[in-house]
Amino acid sequence: MSTTPSSNLPLPYGPPISLTQAKVIMAAAEREANAHQWPMAIAIVDSTGHLAMFQRIDQTQLGSMEVSVAKAMTAIRFRRPTKVFEDAIAAGGAGLRLATMPGVAALEGGVPIVVDGQVIGAIGVSGMLSSQDAQVAAAGLAALAG
Amino acid sequence: MSTTPSSNLPLPYGPPISLTQAKVIMAAAEREANAHQWPMAIAIVDSTGHLAMFQRIDQTQLGSMEVSVAKAMTAIRFRRPTKVFEDAIAAGGAGLRLATMPGVAALEGGVPIVVDGQVIGAIGVSGMLSSQDAQVAAAGLAALAG
Amino acid sequence: MSTTPSSNLPLPYGPPISLTQAKVIMAAAEREANAHQWPMAIAIVDSTGHLAMFQRIDQTQLGSMEVSVAKAMTAIRFRRPTKVFEDAIAAGGAGLRLATMPGVAALEGGVPIVVDGQVIGAIGVSGMLSSQDAQVAAAGLAALAG
Amino acid sequence: MSTTPSSNLPLPYGPPISLTQAKVIMAAAEREANAHQWPMAIAIVDSTGHLAMFQRIDQTQLGSMEVSVAKAMTAIRFRRPTKVFEDAIAAGGAGLRLATMPGVAALEGGVPIVVDGQVIGAIGVSGMLSSQDAQVAAAGLAALAG
Repeated sequence: MSTTPSSNLPLPYGPPISLTQAKVIMAAAEREANAHQWPMAIAIVDSTGHLAMFQRIDQTQLGSMEVSVAKAMTAIRFRRPTKVFEDAIAAGGAGLRLATMPGVAALEGGVPIVVDGQVIGAIGVSGMLSSQDAQVAAAGLAALAG
Repeated sequence: MSTTPSSNLPLPYGPPISLTQAKVIMAAAEREANAHQWPMAIAIVDSTGHLAMFQRIDQTQLGSMEVSVAKAMTAIRFRRPTKVFEDAIAAGGAGLRLATMPGVAALEGGVPIVVDGQVIGAIGVSGMLSSQDAQVAAAGLAALAG
Repeated sequence: MSTTPSSNLPLPYGPPISLTQAKVIMAAAEREANAHQWPMAIAIVDSTGHLAMFQRIDQTQLGSMEVSVAKAMTAIRFRRPTKVFEDAIAAGGAGLRLATMPGVAALEGGVPIVVDGQVIGAIGVSGMLSSQDAQVAAAGLAALAG
Repeated sequence: MSTTPSSNLPLPYGPPISLTQAKVIMAAAEREANAHQWPMAIAIVDSTGHLAMFQRIDQTQLGSMEVSVAKAMTAIRFRRPTKVFEDAIAAGGAGLRLATMPGVAALEGGVPIVVDGQVIGAIGVSGMLSSQDAQVAAAGLAALAG
């Protein structure tokens, strides 16, 4: 499983992630969050751009429900990690134009879910530092790959 | 556990449903849906009106993701089952004014979650006939009461 | 090709309609509209609920751009012709509750596109009487079936 | 045909682009995209700011449907190429204020369609690098000029 295209052409969309697959990712992400006592919202969308599964740990900040979904949606809409957008904006200059692009939440923590070279969905995490959000997303993805 | 106020005063809002409680309800609702092979979306919101947990079974119709959340939100916003609104509209006359009320999805299948006389959240189900949606919501609530 | 499920369970979503398939449907629908000199907007969405193709004939009423897309989106979100919702509302009583359902444009002229028993997209037409809109949608579907 | 005003005064809006004209532009843009195997969404709006024609090639990223329309709408709303906004933002300083301007997608790939000194519509392309999006938009415009 990889989230990095091997050529200039993007990875194709595959079938929508199944609920069974989403549960594996969600459980692993939740374990990682709980291991650090991080109150977080975790959203999984499928390859059609619709919500497949969602959980929020108790005492997650209210804004993170929407932000986690926005991160996952950004990752599936553009088939790339949201960190790509974050980095482009951080670089300044022309990168700042991405702040005007509809459907983009440019915060680390949204990552495509890739199986057999196809994008089947995306995960988005929000609630702590965006690097910590990304750590939880990565833990979720690793479970499906294992 | 009851969803019917015993007096004219509405039940008070209690603390937000915990993720542990939401998982019990979600698992029971999912079992009921799977027993009938019903592709459905199931949403649980907490007493603050924010999404707590969500799952959609494979091949659920795309519109049900939004509708399930709307039913749960209606139930928590007004602390009553969405069927109350459906019945009022079905009765016609002044009841039709409810169709103009913001934040109301007047379709059976959204029900408050009440524990110890307090509303801690609500469940919303969508995907099949609204009576079948309500059957799945009820199965979810029964698990918490048991 | 049929838009009517043969059992209580809905038809499954299939792969998204290809641009090649969409062009066949669009050309036939446009021919039908032009044969009557009907200024209309014609939208085709795919099985993921995203716009695949759109055309508006010169002098189409401005509101029909949005309405045609809404009809197509309704048909794909709920895997049924929009006329089902129109009829339910026309019947009155409890049917009126559908007017409160998010994501529903309850006007004839939106129809799922079904190939080999799978829903691959939907067409929505707007601009004239809704029965005329539906006639153009049907002409489009017939071309793919032929 | 030119997209650059010859004076300080903006070019006037002309009659809305006809469907016949839009098809010429769309076909040329699609050819250019296919020549490079670029999955892209291509939107054409008319001089009244309404969608006239839209196509997405198979496997276009889901977010590009909305972005292509946003680019075309930006170009027609302000009668200038979206690159003007991108450049202003890239220059920093006061240029960044454009990121707060409603209705502006400041990404290269949206260009007005000008005939006989009048703006009759705009094209917006999204799916690959914004310079590649702009290349496809230019190929579309060239067809009408030829």
